[in-house]
Amino acid sequence: MKIGIIGAGSIGLLFAAYLSKAFSVTLYTKTSEQAEIISQNGIYLQEGSARSKFSVSAKPISQWEGEEGLSIIAVKQYQLHSIIKQICKLEFIPQNLLFLQNGMSHLKLLNTIPAANIFVGSVEHGASKVNSNTVSHNGKGDINVALFKGSLQIIKEFTVPCGSINFPISLKDDYYNMLLNKLIANAVINPLTAILQVKNGELIVNSFYFSAVKKLFLEISYILNLEDPIKRFRDVVRICKKTGNNQSSMLKDLEAGRRTEIDAILGFLIEEAQIQQKTAPNIESYYNLIKGIEKDRRGAH
Amino acid sequence: MKIGIIGAGSIGLLFAAYLSKAFSVTLYTKTSEQAEIISQNGIYLQEGSARSKFSVSAKPISQWEGEEGLSIIAVKQYQLHSIIKQICKLEFIPQNLLFLQNGMSHLKLLNTIPAANIFVGSVEHGASKVNSNTVSHNGKGDINVALFKGSLQIIKEFTVPCGSINFPISLKDDYYNMLLNKLIANAVINPLTAILQVKNGELIVNSFYFSAVKKLFLEISYILNLEDPIKRFRDVVRICKKTGNNQSSMLKDLEAGRRTEIDAILGFLIEEAQIQQKTAPNIESYYNLIKGIEKDRRGAH
Repeated sequence: MKIGIIGAGSIGLLFAAYLSKAFSVTLYTKTSEQAEIISQNGIYLQEGSARSKFSVSAKPISQWEGEEGLSIIAVKQYQLHSIIKQICKLEFIPQNLLFLQNGMSHLKLLNTIPAANIFVGSVEHGASKVNSNTVSHNGKGDINVALFKGSLQIIKEFTVPCGSINFPISLKDDYYNMLLNKLIANAVINPLTAILQVKNGELIVNSFYFSAVKKLFLEISYILNLEDPIKRFRDVVRICKKTGNNQSSMLKDLEAGRRTEIDAILGFLIEEAQIQQKTAPNIESYYNLIKGIEKDRRGAH
Repeated sequence: MKIGIIGAGSIGLLFAAYLSKAFSVTLYTKTSEQAEIISQNGIYLQEGSARSKFSVSAKPISQWEGEEGLSIIAVKQYQLHSIIKQICKLEFIPQNLLFLQNGMSHLKLLNTIPAANIFVGSVEHGASKVNSNTVSHNGKGDINVALFKGSLQIIKEFTVPCGSINFPISLKDDYYNMLLNKLIANAVINPLTAILQVKNGELIVNSFYFSAVKKLFLEISYILNLEDPIKRFRDVVRICKKTGNNQSSMLKDLEAGRRTEIDAILGFLIEEAQIQQKTAPNIESYYNLIKGIEKDRRGAH
C-alpha cells in the first residue's frame, strides 16, 4: 500500500520513519527545502542513544495529488483549514484519510470533506523534532484509530502490518470516546504544566497543583457530561505518573515560541460550554493565560 | 516622640531611615546579627543613584518592651501571630500600635490585642531590601493610615512632622475602605504577575492577560459586594499603568524563594466567599497555583 503523510513535524517524521519499513511512504512537507533534505539524506530516528536512518521519499505539499491508498494528515489542528482547502481542490479527492490532530475541534471540519472513508487517530507517543530530518522518539505510547465515516476496510489493511514493524496501531469502536480520553488528559495536563513550567509528574506530586488539577477536571467533566468521572480522573492521574518526567507538548511549544494547540483543546471546551450555556471560569482563564503567554513569547521569537 | 519599628524588612528599614529624621527611632530586628549591623553601620537608603546613611538604634525583637510612644508593626502578615503573642506577654502593653500589613486577614487578629489605640496603614511605596542594613526605594507612593480602635490623638501627633521630612502620611476616615482599595489591587495584580512572571504593565498591554484580569476582578467584586465596581476597576488599571515597569512584591517573593502574602490576600477572599457561601473558582485556582509555586521554589532554596 502506498501511504502519503501530510506534515513533517515530530509526528509526521515519526510515522514516516516507522511506516517506511512496511509501506511505500511519501512525506509531504511545508517547504521544498525540507523535502530536499529528507529526499537526499533520509530521516534520522533517535531512540535513547541509538540512531537509525530511514530512506523516505519527500515532496513539498504543493505536489500532493492524493494518489496514495491512505493519506495520513499529521499537521497541527490550526493548520487543518488550509489542508482541507487543498484536499477539496484536488482533481481526484483522496478517498481514505486518517486525521491525527489533538483535541476535538477538528471533527466539525471533517464533515465538510467529500472523501469516502475518514478515520481519526490519537497518538500517545512522545516525540520531538530535532531538525528538518531528525526526530527524537522520547517515549513509546499507544496509537489508536477509529472510523469517523465510511467503511473500515482500508484501515484494517493498514493496521495489520504495523504490528509486525514494532509500531502497533489499535482499532477502536468509538471515535468520540477515543478522542475524548485524549482530550481530557490534554485539557488538564497541557495548560497547567505550560503555565507553571513544570514536568507532568509535578501536577500530582505538589498537593497545591493537585488541587488545581481537580478543580479544572471538575469543570471539564461538567461540560463534557462525563458519565464515569472517577474513572476518567484516575486515567488523568495515571498519565501524569506514566509521563512524570516529560514536558507536555504545550510547555515545549511555549518554550520554543511556537503556537500551541490551546484552541483545539480548551477552545473546544469553551465552545461546548457556550452551546450548553454553562460557565467555565477556570477553563476560560487558563485559556487566556496560555494565549497571552503565546502572544508574548511568539512576539519575542 | 519615641517610635518603635517592629520588623526590619524593606518597609521596616524604609520607615526607620525616613522617620529617624524627625523622631527617636528604635528598630527591632528578627536576629541580633541584623541589630548589630544596623547599630554599628546605620541604615543605607538608595534612591536612584543616590545613597544616604541614617543612624538608627536597633535591637533584637526579644528586647522589645513596648515603651515607645508609638509602635509600628512592619512584619509580614504571616509573622503577625508571634508578634501579637509577644505583645500580650509584655509587662506593659504598648498603648499605641500601627499595623502596616497587606491584605485584610490581619484585622480579625487586631481585636484580640488589649491596646488602647490601634491604627492600620497601607503603604504604596516600592521598596526592596538589598541587605541587612540597605533598602532601595524604588518608587514613591502614598502612605495612608486610619483608626481601627481607640482615639486619633497620637496618630495625628505622629503624622504632622512626617510631612516636613518628605515622608507624607495621610489620615483616612475609614480603615476598611482604605485597606479594601489596596487589597483589590493586590488581589488582581500580585497573583497574575507572579504566575505569569511579568511586570505589572503587561497585564493591561496584553489583551489576553487583560481578559484574565477582568474575570478575576469580577470574582473579587462579587465577593466583596463592591458598590462601585467600575470605579474600583479603573483604580486597578491605573495602578497597573503607574507601576507598569515594576515587578510585584509577590513575583519578587517567588523569585527569591520567599514566602508570599497570598494567604493575606486571596486567602482572605476565599474565607469571605465561604462565609457568604459564594463560589470563587478563579481565586481558588490562582491561590493553589501560587501556594504550589511557593512550595516548589522554597523547597529549592
